[in-house]
Amino acid sequence: MARQTLAQQVAAAIAQQITDGALKAGDKLPSLREYIRLHGHSKNTVITAYESLAAKGLVEARHGQGFFVIKQIAAPVEEEESQPYNRALDTIWMMRQQFVRDPGHSHLGEGFPPVEWLMDMRLDKFHRQVVRAGVTTLFRYGTRLGNPGLRTRLVQKLADYSIPLSPRQLVTTLGANHGMDLVIRRYVPPGDPVLVEDPGYYPLFGKLQLQGARMLGVPREPDGPNLDVLERLIKAHKPKLFFLQSIGHNPTGSDLSPAKAHQLLRIAEAHDLLLVENDAMADFKPSSSIKLSALDQLQRTLYVGSFSKSVSAALRVGFIAGSKQRIEELADIKMVLHNSGAEYSERTVEVILGEGHFLRHLARLQDRLRQATADGLRLLDELGAEVFCRPEQSLYLWARFPGIDDANLLTRQCLARGVMLAPGAIFSTRPKEAAPWTRLNVAYLNDPLFSESIRQITRDRSASG
Amino acid sequence: MARQTLAQQVAAAIAQQITDGALKAGDKLPSLREYIRLHGHSKNTVITAYESLAAKGLVEARHGQGFFVIKQIAAPVEEEESQPYNRALDTIWMMRQQFVRDPGHSHLGEGFPPVEWLMDMRLDKFHRQVVRAGVTTLFRYGTRLGNPGLRTRLVQKLADYSIPLSPRQLVTTLGANHGMDLVIRRYVPPGDPVLVEDPGYYPLFGKLQLQGARMLGVPREPDGPNLDVLERLIKAHKPKLFFLQSIGHNPTGSDLSPAKAHQLLRIAEAHDLLLVENDAMADFKPSSSIKLSALDQLQRTLYVGSFSKSVSAALRVGFIAGSKQRIEELADIKMVLHNSGAEYSERTVEVILGEGHFLRHLARLQDRLRQATADGLRLLDELGAEVFCRPEQSLYLWARFPGIDDANLLTRQCLARGVMLAPGAIFSTRPKEAAPWTRLNVAYLNDPLFSESIRQITRDRSASG
Repeated sequence: MARQTLAQQVAAAIAQQITDGALKAGDKLPSLREYIRLHGHSKNTVITAYESLAAKGLVEARHGQGFFVIKQIAAPVEEEESQPYNRALDTIWMMRQQFVRDPGHSHLGEGFPPVEWLMDMRLDKFHRQVVRAGVTTLFRYGTRLGNPGLRTRLVQKLADYSIPLSPRQLVTTLGANHGMDLVIRRYVPPGDPVLVEDPGYYPLFGKLQLQGARMLGVPREPDGPNLDVLERLIKAHKPKLFFLQSIGHNPTGSDLSPAKAHQLLRIAEAHDLLLVENDAMADFKPSSSIKLSALDQLQRTLYVGSFSKSVSAALRVGFIAGSKQRIEELADIKMVLHNSGAEYSERTVEVILGEGHFLRHLARLQDRLRQATADGLRLLDELGAEVFCRPEQSLYLWARFPGIDDANLLTRQCLARGVMLAPGAIFSTRPKEAAPWTRLNVAYLNDPLFSESIRQITRDRSASG
Repeated sequence: MARQTLAQQVAAAIAQQITDGALKAGDKLPSLREYIRLHGHSKNTVITAYESLAAKGLVEARHGQGFFVIKQIAAPVEEEESQPYNRALDTIWMMRQQFVRDPGHSHLGEGFPPVEWLMDMRLDKFHRQVVRAGVTTLFRYGTRLGNPGLRTRLVQKLADYSIPLSPRQLVTTLGANHGMDLVIRRYVPPGDPVLVEDPGYYPLFGKLQLQGARMLGVPREPDGPNLDVLERLIKAHKPKLFFLQSIGHNPTGSDLSPAKAHQLLRIAEAHDLLLVENDAMADFKPSSSIKLSALDQLQRTLYVGSFSKSVSAALRVGFIAGSKQRIEELADIKMVLHNSGAEYSERTVEVILGEGHFLRHLARLQDRLRQATADGLRLLDELGAEVFCRPEQSLYLWARFPGIDDANLLTRQCLARGVMLAPGAIFSTRPKEAAPWTRLNVAYLNDPLFSESIRQITRDRSASG
C-alpha cells in the first residue's frame, strides 16, 4: 500500500468526520489559519487537503467565506422521516461514536469505568464454581423470572438498600437497558407521553423514540428533577411513567435530595404515576444512598439494576424489582421476546455476589471513584470550569468551560486533538439546540492531553473573543 | 407440614390447572365416572375433591350437567383488552407452560433437545481458551456488530451453506428470538400486515402481537408455504415481510422443496417482499439442506441463526445475516436496545466453533436425531396416527391421532397422565379454533408413558364413539 502524503492524511481525517456525521452538511470547515494553528501543518498541506475534498464533492468553497460540507447522498431511510427508526437516529449516531475506540484517543466521553477498575474481580476464577453447581443447566433455557440462586442473592442485596422483597418480586434482565426496554414495551404504547429527565440517559431516549413514545423532559437540578415543571407536565399531558435516576445521575452525577424524593413520591401518588428508578450506579455509591424504591417500598416504583458497570458489561446481567404483579407482567414480556435470560451469565454473577471478595472489590471501586472525583473537581476548578454539582463520588461530572456556549463545537475541537467528549446536546430531549455542558468521566480526567486541549481552546477563544 | 389426603391432592391438582389456565372459565370438569376411570381413585375421593373446589369458589355444580370452572377474578389487564400485551396473552400462557418442568412428567411437547444430546460438548472445557484470548474484553461492552472472531467463524459456517458473505453482513444477537425481535422493531411498524406460516413458530406470533402487527397466516404444507394463498394475501394486504422456516419447520418438521423455494423467491421479487428465514434448526440438518438465503444470496432475505439448540440455550447467542445496509440498520436497533451483545458468551461460542470436536458433536447430534425420527415415525404408525410429513431427521413430528379433532382436549387428558404435549392450536394464528394436530419432540417419543396414554385415550374414544 502506498504511503499517504500529509495532505492526503488530513483530507482522509476530515472525510472520515463527514462520513461519521461529526461534520454535517452546511458545517464550515476550520479556516486555513485556524486549521494550521490547531495542527501545525503547512498552509500548502491544508489547501491541498481542502481542495482534494472539494474535488471529491465532499465540501465546497464559498467565495470569501471558506469551505463548507456539502449535503451527502441521502441514505434510503430519509424517505420515511416519520418512522421510529429515523426518530432514534440522533441517539444511534451518538451510540455508534461511543463504540469507536481510537487507541491514541483520550476517552473523557466514555460512559464506562476503566477496565482496570473491574479486573480485581477475576471473572475467570469463578468458572469452576459456576460449573460445579450443576452443568446441565448451562445448556438449557433459564426460567421465566431468572436464576433462583441469583434472585436470592439480589434479595439480600436489596435488603441492604432497605428494599425488602420476595424473590417473586425480581426478574432478571440482559442488563439495565434491557430492563428499561421491557418496561417500555409493557407500559408505553406508541404515542403515549412519558416523563424523562433532561439532561438524561440518552440510550433511554433512543428506546422511547423507537417505541414511538412522546418524551416530556423534566429539567434535572443538582438535587433532583424540577418538581414545578414535573407537575405542569403531568397536568398538561397526563403521562403514566417517569424514568429517572436517583443517584449518580447520568450525565450530571447529581443525587436526589431526601426532601425532593419525599415530595416526588407524593406527586406520583396524587397523579398515579409509576416511577422507573434506574439505579445502574448503585455499586458506585454507599448502600445508604437515597433510593425512591426504599422510601416507597416498590408500590409505585420499579427498580432497575445492573452489574455492567461494577462486575462486567460483557455478561449482560441486570434485573428489575417491583410489585409481584408488575414483575409477572414484565417476565411475560421477557419470555415472549427472549424465551429466557442468559442462565450461563446469571450463574456467573450469582457466584461472584456470593464471594466475600466482592464487597472488598466494591469498596476499592468506591475508593478509586472518590479519589478520582476529588481530583477531577480540583482540575475543573483550575481550568475555570463551572460544575453542575460537587458529588463526593460519581463516575460522571457535568461541567461547562469558560466561553463555551456550544459543547458540540468544543467536542469537535477536542476530537481533532485526540480527546473524545460527550457533549450536552446528546443528553437533551432537544438535541438540535446548543448545550454548553459536557459529561466527563472522572476516571480519565487526569489525562494531560485533556487539560492541555481545554486550556488551548479556551485561551484561543478568549483571545479571539 | 401435614400430609394431604388423596382428595386434597386431587383438588390441588385441579386448582393448579385452573390457575395455570389449562382449565378455563366455563370448562367442564371430567364426569365423576370419567375421572375415576382415568385416575383409579374411589368415587368418594373424587366427590370430596370436587366439592372442596366448589367450596373454594373455583368450580360450580350445574344441575344434571356436572362441575364447571367458574370465571376467576379478573386481573387488571382485562380492562384494556386492546393493549398489545393482552393480545399476546395466549402465547404467553403457552410459553409459561413450557417452563413448567414437572420432574415426573414426560415432555413430548418440549421444543428443546434433551440436554444429554448437547453435553458431549463440554462447555466448561473451553473457558480457559475464552480467557486466554484476552481477559479485558470480558469486562467491556462488545462491539455494535458483535465479536469479530465469532463473526469470522460464522462467515466460514455460512460459506458451507453456500451463503458467501463478508463479516459486515453479520450482526450477533442474543439468540434467534432476539434476532426476530430486532427485525420486527426495525421493519414492522404497529398496525402493519406481516406474513407468517400457519402453523408456525408461536413465540414469533407473541412478538408480532406485542408490536401490534397484523398477522396473515399462510398455510404450511409438507413442501413449504401454500403459494396460492400467499399471492392472494399479498395482493389483498400488501405486506412487506414474510417470516418462515425453510427446514425442520417448527412445528411440522417439514422442509421446503427446491421448486417451491424458487417460486417463492420469484413471488417475493415481484411484490418486493423481504423474506425472514429463521434457520434455528440448521445444525440439526445436513449443511446441503435447502435455504432460501443460499438461492437468493441475501438480496431479499434475512437469515436468522442460533446456537441455542445445538450448543447451549443458556449462552443466548444467535445472529442475523443480510445485506450490509440491512445489517447496519439492525445493528443500530440492537445498540439502542442493549448497547451490545453478550461478549462473554460470544467468545465462548467462538471458541467452541473453532474446536475440531464441534463437527463431531454435530454429526453425533444428527445421528441421534435421525434414529429418533425413524423410531418415532414407526411408533406413530403403530399408534394409527396420521403424520403430516416423514422427514429423515427433524426434532419435531406433526401428528394427529385416531378420533381426535381437538388436540387441546387430548393435551388435557395426557397432562392428567403426566404427559405434556404441544397442541396444534398454539401454533395457529387462530388459537381459539380447534386443531387436531400435535407437535411431538422425537427425543421423547420412546417414553412408554406416552404411547400407553395415547392407546388408552384413543381406545376409550373409539369405545364411546
